[in-house]
Amino acid sequence: MAGKNRFKPREIKMDATDRYNWEGLSGWKSYRMFRPGRGMYHDVRRRVPYYWSDIYDGFNYRTFAGTIRIFFVNLLPAIAFQLDMSRRVGYSFFGINEALFASALAAVVFSIFSAQPLTIVGITGLISLFNYTIYDIAVHQGIADRYPEFIAWVAIWAAITHWIMAIGNLCDYMRYITDFSSNSFGMYVGIIYMIKGVENLTAEFSDNSIQAGFMGIVVALCYWYTVHNLELLPDTILFNPVIRKFISDYAYPIATIFYTGFVHIPGPLKNANVLKLPTAPAFHPSQPRSWFIQFYTLEAKWVFVALPIGILLTLLFYYDHNISSITAQARSFPLKKPAGFHWDFFLLGITCFIGGILGLPLPNGLVPQAPVHTDSVTEYKDNLHAVIEEEDGVTTNKCHKTIDPVLVSEQRVSHFLMGLGLIGMMTGPLLVVLRTMPRCLFSGVFFVVGFPGIGGNGITSNALFLLSERRFVDPNDPRLNLRPRKIVLFDACRIFAVAASVAISQTIGAIGFPIIILALIPLRWKIYPRWFTKEELEVLDSPTADADVVLASVGGRPTMPEVRREQETLRRRNVDGEEGANSGETSSTSSKQEETSKQE
Amino acid sequence: MAGKNRFKPREIKMDATDRYNWEGLSGWKSYRMFRPGRGMYHDVRRRVPYYWSDIYDGFNYRTFAGTIRIFFVNLLPAIAFQLDMSRRVGYSFFGINEALFASALAAVVFSIFSAQPLTIVGITGLISLFNYTIYDIAVHQGIADRYPEFIAWVAIWAAITHWIMAIGNLCDYMRYITDFSSNSFGMYVGIIYMIKGVENLTAEFSDNSIQAGFMGIVVALCYWYTVHNLELLPDTILFNPVIRKFISDYAYPIATIFYTGFVHIPGPLKNANVLKLPTAPAFHPSQPRSWFIQFYTLEAKWVFVALPIGILLTLLFYYDHNISSITAQARSFPLKKPAGFHWDFFLLGITCFIGGILGLPLPNGLVPQAPVHTDSVTEYKDNLHAVIEEEDGVTTNKCHKTIDPVLVSEQRVSHFLMGLGLIGMMTGPLLVVLRTMPRCLFSGVFFVVGFPGIGGNGITSNALFLLSERRFVDPNDPRLNLRPRKIVLFDACRIFAVAASVAISQTIGAIGFPIIILALIPLRWKIYPRWFTKEELEVLDSPTADADVVLASVGGRPTMPEVRREQETLRRRNVDGEEGANSGETSSTSSKQEETSKQE
Repeated sequence: MAGKNRFKPREIKMDATDRYNWEGLSGWKSYRMFRPGRGMYHDVRRRVPYYWSDIYDGFNYRTFAGTIRIFFVNLLPAIAFQLDMSRRVGYSFFGINEALFASALAAVVFSIFSAQPLTIVGITGLISLFNYTIYDIAVHQGIADRYPEFIAWVAIWAAITHWIMAIGNLCDYMRYITDFSSNSFGMYVGIIYMIKGVENLTAEFSDNSIQAGFMGIVVALCYWYTVHNLELLPDTILFNPVIRKFISDYAYPIATIFYTGFVHIPGPLKNANVLKLPTAPAFHPSQPRSWFIQFYTLEAKWVFVALPIGILLTLLFYYDHNISSITAQARSFPLKKPAGFHWDFFLLGITCFIGGILGLPLPNGLVPQAPVHTDSVTEYKDNLHAVIEEEDGVTTNKCHKTIDPVLVSEQRVSHFLMGLGLIGMMTGPLLVVLRTMPRCLFSGVFFVVGFPGIGGNGITSNALFLLSERRFVDPNDPRLNLRPRKIVLFDACRIFAVAASVAISQTIGAIGFPIIILALIPLRWKIYPRWFTKEELEVLDSPTADADVVLASVGGRPTMPEVRREQETLRRRNVDGEEGANSGETSSTSSKQEETSKQE
Repeated sequence: MAGKNRFKPREIKMDATDRYNWEGLSGWKSYRMFRPGRGMYHDVRRRVPYYWSDIYDGFNYRTFAGTIRIFFVNLLPAIAFQLDMSRRVGYSFFGINEALFASALAAVVFSIFSAQPLTIVGITGLISLFNYTIYDIAVHQGIADRYPEFIAWVAIWAAITHWIMAIGNLCDYMRYITDFSSNSFGMYVGIIYMIKGVENLTAEFSDNSIQAGFMGIVVALCYWYTVHNLELLPDTILFNPVIRKFISDYAYPIATIFYTGFVHIPGPLKNANVLKLPTAPAFHPSQPRSWFIQFYTLEAKWVFVALPIGILLTLLFYYDHNISSITAQARSFPLKKPAGFHWDFFLLGITCFIGGILGLPLPNGLVPQAPVHTDSVTEYKDNLHAVIEEEDGVTTNKCHKTIDPVLVSEQRVSHFLMGLGLIGMMTGPLLVVLRTMPRCLFSGVFFVVGFPGIGGNGITSNALFLLSERRFVDPNDPRLNLRPRKIVLFDACRIFAVAASVAISQTIGAIGFPIIILALIPLRWKIYPRWFTKEELEVLDSPTADADVVLASVGGRPTMPEVRREQETLRRRNVDGEEGANSGETSSTSSKQEETSKQE
C-alpha cells in the first residue's frame, strides 16, 4: 500500500483568480444557491483544455486491456442485478436487455460528455434494490399495473432534483465526507452484494433442483477462487511482469469462459442442468412494450407520491455516484487531469431522465468497481527494494517488491469502447452467447466484486486490530496510541448504521437506507469532535476526497471540525493571556499527522 | 520455519564404548549380517532408561490435546482408505471394523513396546493400494475366493522379511536416504491422497446421485478450507496464544462435528441424502467370518506366489515406516530421547504377522501424519522479535512473531490413549456415531492430509523458484548460485519417478511402485556425484535423517558420496605433490554449508 502512495499528482496549473472556492467571500456571494452553475462552469472550464488529450491518450495497449477488464466488471454484475430484480418482482420488467441498454447509454453519455471519464457509470445493486422495493410499494398501493409509469416519475423527479443540486453547487459538500461514512457505505454495499450472491444460489434450489443448487455452489465458489487468485498474481514474483499483468488483466474473461464451458461438459455437469441466463429478442424490451413509457398517463396523485421517492433516489445517487468518482480519482493514482463533480452530477440527471422515460434501470457511479477502472488503465512498474534487516544484532540483506503506479491513461476511450461493447452485446448473435451462461456464475461475480468491500474495509481492519495480541502489532500502527474503547466507540456507530441499513434493505422501507448513511455525516461533523480528541480522529478517520485534483472541484480542502475546535480553544486561551502564538505550530503538526495517517 | 530450528537437541549422553556404529571395524565384525541383533540390542539398551519418563512425561495438558488431534488425524484417513478399498474390490473384506482393529492393535503394541513411541503407526493409503491390487491379482489368477488366505501369506512373508532385516541391522541404510528420494515419496503419497479424495467424491455421483455428488464436493471443499484455516490460526496474531492454540488443536473435531451435523440439517441438505459410513456390528469382521484366517489351508503353490509380494511389501514398509520415524523425530523438534529403528522394525514384523492372520489391513508408520503427532505434543512459545529495517537510508522499527518449540512431551501416553480411543470406537454406541458421518467428509480429510505433501514439497519449491523472476528472489537463497538447468536436471529425475509411480499405481503393477522410489537411492548415491558438483548437491539435497538422536540408531552421520569424492580427488592431488593439507578445511566448510541449506 505504501508503494501506491509514493507518487504525488502534479499540481493543477490554473489561473489564480479562476480558482473555484468559497473562501474569502461574503454577503450573497458566499451563498451557493445564489450563484447557480458556478461549480458546473468551473468544472467545464477546467476540463475542456484536456479534451483532445482525453482521446489521443487512449491509443495504447493499457487502455485496450483496461477496456476488456472493465467491460466484464461492469457487464457481469449489471446482468446479475437484473436476474435478482426479475426474481424478486416475479416478472422481468427490467431484464437483460434493459440492463445492457442502460449500461450502454450511461457509458456513451459519460464517456463523451463527462468531466470525469474515469468514473464508470452503470447498474448497481442498490438501484436494483430500489426498483424492486418500489415495485413492492406499488403492489401495496394497488398500482402494480402502473409500475412502469410510476417508476418513470420517480426517475423524472430524481432528474429534476439532480439538476437542482448540480446547479446549486451542492456537490461541494462531498468534501466533508470522511472514511467514517464512506467505509460504512462500502461495507453496506459489500454485504448487499454477498447477500445477492447467496440469494441467487438459493434460487437455484427453489427454482430448479437440488442437484443444480449444489452444482451452482461449486461453480460460484470456484469462480470466486479463480478470479481472486488470478487478480492477485501481480503480487507474486512468478513468471515476469508482462505475463503476471496479462493474466490478471484477463482474469474475468478467462474465468467466465472457463466456467461457462464447464457447465456444458457432458456428464453429471451438463445433466445437473443449472439455470442459464434468460434473454429477450435483440434490441427489444423484456416485456412486450415499446421502449418509450407513456409516463404522462399516470394519475396526478401518484406523480406526487413519486416525488419523495425520487428525492431519496437523488440522495442515494448523490452519495453513491460522487463517492465512486472520488475513489476512481483517489490520491493513490498519479492523476494529473482535473475533476468535475457538479457537471457530472448534472449529466447524471440527464441519464436519469432518459432512463426513466425509456423504462431502464437507472445507471450511476459503481462503488466497488470505481477504482477498478482507474487501476486497470494504470501502468504499473515492479520495483525492487533492497532492505537491510537487523535483528538481535544480526544483519541480513533482504529484498521486497513494490508495484508502483507510473502513469494513468487518463482518457475517454476505454469508457467509450466499453459502451460500444455493451451495444454489441445487445445484438442477436451475442445474446445467444449470453444465453449459454449459467446464472450461478453470477453469484461468483457478486462474491468477487463484493468481498473486498468487507475484507478491505476500515471497520474490518479496526476489528482485527482490536482482536489482535497487542505486543505483536506493527509498532508503527498509530492506533496503538489510542485507548481501545475509543476505537470501539468510533466503530460501534458505523457498525450500527451498517446493520440498520442491511436490516431495512430486507423490508419495504429499503428505499430509506440512504438516510441512515447520510445521517453519519452530521454525526461525524457535529458530535464526534466532542467525543474524541483531534489526535484520535486524525488516527481513526480522514477525508475520503484526498487528491488535490478532486478537491479543486469541490471548493478545496476543508478544515476538519476537530481542528477548528482546537484552533478556537487556542484562540480563546490567547485572549486569556496564556501562552504565545503556538497555534500555527500545532496546526502544521496536525496536518502532518493527517498526512501520515492517510499514508498507511 | 527459521524459528523452528532454533532449538538444538541435547547430545545423548552415552558410554563411549557403547556407541553403535560400524566405523573402525574390520574383518567379519564389519559385516552387518554377521552380527545379528546388534542394532536391536543397542536400540533397547539406549531407550530402556527412559521408559518410566515416557509414562510420567505424558501427564500434562499438551499430551491430552495432542491425543485428540492425533486420534482424528489417524482415525479419519484410516476409515477413508477402507471406504476406498471396499469400493475398489467390490466387497468389503477390509471394512471399518478391520481399520479400527488394525489401528488400535498397532497403537497399543507400538505405544507400549516401541523404542520410538512418537511414530504413529496406523493404516495408510499405500497399504490400501496394495490390498486392492493384490485382490486384482487374485481375481486374475482365479483365486479370488482364497483372497483372505493369500493375503495372510503375503503378510506372513512380509513379517519374516521384516525380522530378517531388523536382525540383520539393515535399518542402518536409512541414513543414506536424502531428500532427493524422500521428497519424491512425499509427493507421491500426497498425489495418491488427492486422487483418493477425488475418487471418493466421484463415487458419490456414480453410487448415489448427482445431487449428492455436488453436495459432496461442497462439503469436502468446505471441510478442507475450515481445517486448513483453523490449523493456521497460530500463525496469526489474533486473540491470544492460548485461544489460537486451542482452536488449532481441535481443528479436526470442530470441523468433523460441524460438517457431520451440516449434512443432517433438514431441507435440501438432508434431502440430498449423501452416503454415510457403512459399519458392521460391533467387534465383528465386516464379512461373516471368524477373526482368525485359516492361512494354512492355502495351496503350497500360492504360498510361494505370495513371497515376492511380501518382499515388495517389506520394501514399502522399510521405506515408509522408517521415513515416518525420521520425520517424527526431525531436527526441528527439540528432542532429547534416543531413537531405535531396528527394534521398531522388528516390532512392525510382529504387527504384520498378527494383522495377517487376523485379516486386518497392515499398519505401518504414517508418512503425512508422522510429524503431526510430534508437533501436536510440542509446547510452543510465541516470541516477539524487534527488527530494524533500513531501506534507501530510511530506518523503520518493525516486529515479527516466531513460534518456537520449547519442549516436546516425549512420551507413550498419547499414542496409548489414542489406541484406547480406537478400541472405544469399535463399541456399539460409537459405531452408531460413525454411521452418521458422511463419506464425502473423508475426501476433505484426504485433501487436508495430502495437500501439504505436494504444496510444501522440495520439488514444488524448486519449481516455483525456477518460475520466479530472479531479481525479486530473496538474495539469501543459495539456489541463486546454481545454474537453472542444474536444478531442472536434479528435479527431472524425481518428477519422472513420481509420475511413473503414480502411473503404475493405477494398474495391476501397483505393488511394484516401491522399487521405483527405492531406485532413486542408488541413483543419487552413485550417479549424481558425477553429474553435479559437491556445492550443487549441498544446496539441492541433504540427508533426510538430520537429528543426532536419529542418527545414533542408524550408525551415525554418513559421509556423503560427493564429499568422499572430493576428499579422494584432493588426496590424489596431494600425492601428486600439489597443494598442502587443506582438505580438512574444505570439509569443515562443506559441513557448515550443509547446516545452512538445511536451516531454511
